[in-house]
Amino acid sequence: MGKINIVKYPPRETWERVTKRPGGGASDLDRVCETIFEEVRREGDEALRRYTRHFDRARPEFLEVTGEEFEEAARETPAALREAILLARARVERFHVLQAPREDVTIHDHGIRCWQETRPIERVGLYVPGGSAPLFSTVVMLVVPARLAGCREIALCTPPRPDGKVHPAIAWSARACGATRLYKVGGVQAIAAMTFGTESIRRVDKILGPGNAFVTAAKQRASTLGVAIDMPAGPSELMVVADETADPRFVAADLLSQAEHGPDSQVFLVTSEEYLPERVEAELERQARALPRGEIIERALGTSTCVVLRDREECADFINSYAPEHLMLSVKDSAWWIPLVQHAGSVFIGNYS
Amino acid sequence: MGKINIVKYPPRETWERVTKRPGGGASDLDRVCETIFEEVRREGDEALRRYTRHFDRARPEFLEVTGEEFEEAARETPAALREAILLARARVERFHVLQAPREDVTIHDHGIRCWQETRPIERVGLYVPGGSAPLFSTVVMLVVPARLAGCREIALCTPPRPDGKVHPAIAWSARACGATRLYKVGGVQAIAAMTFGTESIRRVDKILGPGNAFVTAAKQRASTLGVAIDMPAGPSELMVVADETADPRFVAADLLSQAEHGPDSQVFLVTSEEYLPERVEAELERQARALPRGEIIERALGTSTCVVLRDREECADFINSYAPEHLMLSVKDSAWWIPLVQHAGSVFIGNYS
Repeated sequence: MGKINIVKYPPRETWERVTKRPGGGASDLDRVCETIFEEVRREGDEALRRYTRHFDRARPEFLEVTGEEFEEAARETPAALREAILLARARVERFHVLQAPREDVTIHDHGIRCWQETRPIERVGLYVPGGSAPLFSTVVMLVVPARLAGCREIALCTPPRPDGKVHPAIAWSARACGATRLYKVGGVQAIAAMTFGTESIRRVDKILGPGNAFVTAAKQRASTLGVAIDMPAGPSELMVVADETADPRFVAADLLSQAEHGPDSQVFLVTSEEYLPERVEAELERQARALPRGEIIERALGTSTCVVLRDREECADFINSYAPEHLMLSVKDSAWWIPLVQHAGSVFIGNYS
Repeated sequence: MGKINIVKYPPRETWERVTKRPGGGASDLDRVCETIFEEVRREGDEALRRYTRHFDRARPEFLEVTGEEFEEAARETPAALREAILLARARVERFHVLQAPREDVTIHDHGIRCWQETRPIERVGLYVPGGSAPLFSTVVMLVVPARLAGCREIALCTPPRPDGKVHPAIAWSARACGATRLYKVGGVQAIAAMTFGTESIRRVDKILGPGNAFVTAAKQRASTLGVAIDMPAGPSELMVVADETADPRFVAADLLSQAEHGPDSQVFLVTSEEYLPERVEAELERQARALPRGEIIERALGTSTCVVLRDREECADFINSYAPEHLMLSVKDSAWWIPLVQHAGSVFIGNYS
């Protein structure tokens, strides 16, 4: 439990192999997506209900969450959690409101005025994965920017639990953040529904949000059918860069936090401290024992690696050769590192030592 | 010659049919793309040369434009054209420099600082279609923003002419705007080359630029293979909205300017002036006779329509139901129209009467 590959001083020509992403089997994904899309297009809600029974073991009465269910969700979401969600909403709002498009893109030339105006996308469809953890933070991070942008319809799809309901904190967050519809449909069938429209679900202009390999393949299919998508979000990835000031306990905790996302997650420790991988591995073993998602972690760590490189310049090159979704800088001199990061979805900087 | 469909007062439930986009045959596109991608992945330059012989009837000695060819292009591009391209470059620069990302997206909260930094994409691959017209304006509009963004490598692919060269104005514009490489490869094989890399062409991080249905399908395939794309650009589209102040001669000229892009182009006149379609059609017939691309125009107008609606409110709804790539407002009161436009790639406003 907690075993991870350790590679010391790999030559550059081997980096591509060391950082190979797990996955494959794309042809199977495509075939599954094609079938589900075709059935949803042809049969609408009927197909959605069939796949919801099959994949989610659920038989919801209505595919859309009703007013009554929202009230129930409010009662069932503890006050402390509701408060935490509102705090998160406020922070996410403060950040995204600053991203509002510039109003000052205008040039005049020979009596011609050229300018840029942006318009909100009218109907967006947001996808929130289900599974074992209720991802209400994903609800907040998807719905708030859509609302700030001024989207008129903000539909949210998420798979129901076997009792035919969505987790109360998901329902409560959706309403609190301003989603206009919440549907109990997940997976490829949800993406197909938002692409074609069904009796219950209106088609949308753009689909956004994370998902597993099937949802990603479904979004890519949607993008060939006249619906825009944000990006093909893949499995979770994290690189932790650590120097001699990093605490192996926190490095291990960070690695586990992403590894537990799914069996196809991939995490790396990148360091020039030769002693660090063994210490981090010992911590991974100790901490993983206390976590409920042991099997997922085990599989994710199987394609994960602690890499020792000669110096921080080489570490920076290694990061950029992989371009991780998340990058954690656990170093004393983050100002040296930041300008060197060429690609990364998000960068966390912290040193808890 | 110049015949166009005319539809007066179509009920709303028929709009979808009236505005149906031409196209289809997607399965064939996919099959062609799959074959070419696989061959380029496996054989590299060898496959590029084979398809260049096949589609472009060209046997270039090198796939990359050399220094000597650039010098020749400079000699062969008339001074007046070079000056015009430099003027266009300056205007495009003035506009895009204003789009630089905001530097002020930062919040502080409980000792945590969250901020946004953007990075240029390192390697972009730009596609400039070939065919009968040398699209040097496309070169300017693709290369200038990439250079302003700070992309390190700006590769440009365009099909060669049968003599194995690219049009001098294309080569000259590419260099003048700051492209770092210019390749004589077009079509699906160009997109595949930029996706996988070959002996001559380096793989890129993102592919941008217009193209025909094959290039669009190829870009969509690239997006499932780890390369980002700008968007699935389709055939050219234009809606001209005209009121009683519009001059039928200019309306017809605008419609023809897009119709001549390709046989799959689609154009619309949208008006509440019942007399206008017949006058515009007469102008289309008169002007089309003088144009060299008669057959292309004929076919494009076959799926194009002049639509008369009850009032301008209905016209605005009609525009938004279609969401044209280009919208031309040939009206006296453009300030009334602009806020109502929900979707359109670009809007031109002008009234030449």
